[in-house]
Amino acid sequence: MGPHPAVAAIRLAVRRVLHDLLTEHHRAPAAVPHALSHESPPLVLVACSGGADSMALASALAFESPKLGIRAGGVTVDHGLQPGSDLRAAEVVQRLRELGLDPVDSVAVSVGRAGGPEAAARDARYAALDTVAERHGAAAVLLGHTRDDQAETVLLGLARGSGIRSLSGMAAVSGAGGRYRRPFLGLDRQTARKACMVQSLPVWDDPHNADPAYTRSRLRHEGLPALEKALGKGVVEALARTAQLSRDDADALDSWAAQAETTVRDAAGLLECAKLYALPPAVRRRVLRRAAIAAGAPAGSLFARHIEEVDRLITGWRGQGAINLPGKVVAQRQGGRLVIRQG
Amino acid sequence: MGPHPAVAAIRLAVRRVLHDLLTEHHRAPAAVPHALSHESPPLVLVACSGGADSMALASALAFESPKLGIRAGGVTVDHGLQPGSDLRAAEVVQRLRELGLDPVDSVAVSVGRAGGPEAAARDARYAALDTVAERHGAAAVLLGHTRDDQAETVLLGLARGSGIRSLSGMAAVSGAGGRYRRPFLGLDRQTARKACMVQSLPVWDDPHNADPAYTRSRLRHEGLPALEKALGKGVVEALARTAQLSRDDADALDSWAAQAETTVRDAAGLLECAKLYALPPAVRRRVLRRAAIAAGAPAGSLFARHIEEVDRLITGWRGQGAINLPGKVVAQRQGGRLVIRQG
Repeated sequence: MGPHPAVAAIRLAVRRVLHDLLTEHHRAPAAVPHALSHESPPLVLVACSGGADSMALASALAFESPKLGIRAGGVTVDHGLQPGSDLRAAEVVQRLRELGLDPVDSVAVSVGRAGGPEAAARDARYAALDTVAERHGAAAVLLGHTRDDQAETVLLGLARGSGIRSLSGMAAVSGAGGRYRRPFLGLDRQTARKACMVQSLPVWDDPHNADPAYTRSRLRHEGLPALEKALGKGVVEALARTAQLSRDDADALDSWAAQAETTVRDAAGLLECAKLYALPPAVRRRVLRRAAIAAGAPAGSLFARHIEEVDRLITGWRGQGAINLPGKVVAQRQGGRLVIRQG
Repeated sequence: MGPHPAVAAIRLAVRRVLHDLLTEHHRAPAAVPHALSHESPPLVLVACSGGADSMALASALAFESPKLGIRAGGVTVDHGLQPGSDLRAAEVVQRLRELGLDPVDSVAVSVGRAGGPEAAARDARYAALDTVAERHGAAAVLLGHTRDDQAETVLLGLARGSGIRSLSGMAAVSGAGGRYRRPFLGLDRQTARKACMVQSLPVWDDPHNADPAYTRSRLRHEGLPALEKALGKGVVEALARTAQLSRDDADALDSWAAQAETTVRDAAGLLECAKLYALPPAVRRRVLRRAAIAAGAPAGSLFARHIEEVDRLITGWRGQGAINLPGKVVAQRQGGRLVIRQG
């Protein structure tokens, strides 16, 4: 008799990612981190909060890695946001060791305030994971984000209204050199939870996940269920598919814009308005965005409405003055040229 | 003292569209319907259900059109779905005449079942509007869809999970020759309602709009409010902006795919797998979709999962057999070529 379907599902998801890692290793050894060289077995870490998703991930990694000649380790991040979080981290370390993972690290971080509590915690967490991965020369760090997390991320992006890049959610492969892998992006949260239950793995429910002070938590417990009630049960899957399609679309348009940018500049490197005008609006706006960022505008502060205003210098020219963009960047039209530079 | 801000807003929105119509007329007279020729003043119709949105639209059209030398008429469609709908339609005709519109028509349609009750009613409605517009030689038909309707349409598209085209909502200009115009797409429903109130215009609330049997109604009364509660008040605006950005992106990618399709065919007109492989995934999938439709697959039955399966003949070739698509279209790989045809 095989394993429970939920356990089979999480193992299959992890096995696929481990296979990818080994294939990348064999195909292009030079492009792969040191740890995948032939001298020692590669190390793959799981980032684990102790919650059901990442505990399921850890258990599947522990099961699959020996069969593929991969060493499996773990890391948990203590965000220090709740009393006793250090004890909690120590407990997670203990549970990961009981699964047979080695090495297992706990890293305490101090969470700042930049960009709001969720963004600050995320930034601190990834910085810590980067550090640990580099210290151990890990080939990859697995993250337990599920299809439900992906659906929430798409809705959060939708609420920004800043275009399809923000609808593209989390990538299955991200970070420097493709360090971060998300094996569970196609798996629902319920499967991970079930897999922990049938394997008798203790899991910890982060109270933040149910705290209505957090946007994501409100979305999870109120927004998405209401949307499912109105639109039907397939919403989470539809959102996850939207993420993938949007990501591919955004990539293609970005590559078009990068290519177009080289053709709309004059000999002095200035943007020619007539050539910009001839581009499809979607491509033109991306070229303008690239130019603003190249001039020093911080990408995170540059919104769709900024670019729309610059675009009107091209499509709705009626002698407008200079337009101020974030990062003290100024855009203005001068004699058939669009000049974007730091003022 | 000027008009109430809500009334000013609806009038401005209509004035802009009427200006566009006149500008198009002067720029390209040959491309504009007969009614915009110089012999007689052009006629613009408003499609009116008697609800707040379209009554507000009718009142703004009645106010703005004489100043621009445009004739204003109206049409209401009796869907025959509720007892007494004929009396209701007669009442709407009366109200439109009281606003000074002329001609005003009422058209009874019989709603089929194809595609579900909402789609069937919509198809019947547009067919009737087309007929009336042609009978009167109208230059345009104005529709009262608001930003809230647009947000709902984006969410309905999101639930399909079929990519950015389905996120692009309703166009400000659509139909044959750009017949349909939606002046209120940037205006919220509350403004239209308020404009009716301060102008003492009687409005009719369609009971279907509050009937939880309809997906759109559930979305309006439960889904969207819950999403706003989780994500903040800007959700409707963000969804409407997403529609516009997605539409432009989808247009640009469609034009790329149309161009790419001509370069990936061999001398016999067959698709070359190696050339398809070299395209960005977003462009390749659009080329495959175009090819399937050209071979006879009905666009409305061709889903993302169909195209993904065909795509795997290119990106994940391991000797798969023929793939069946809607409309008895078959896709198969033969000697480095992708053959898509009706079987």
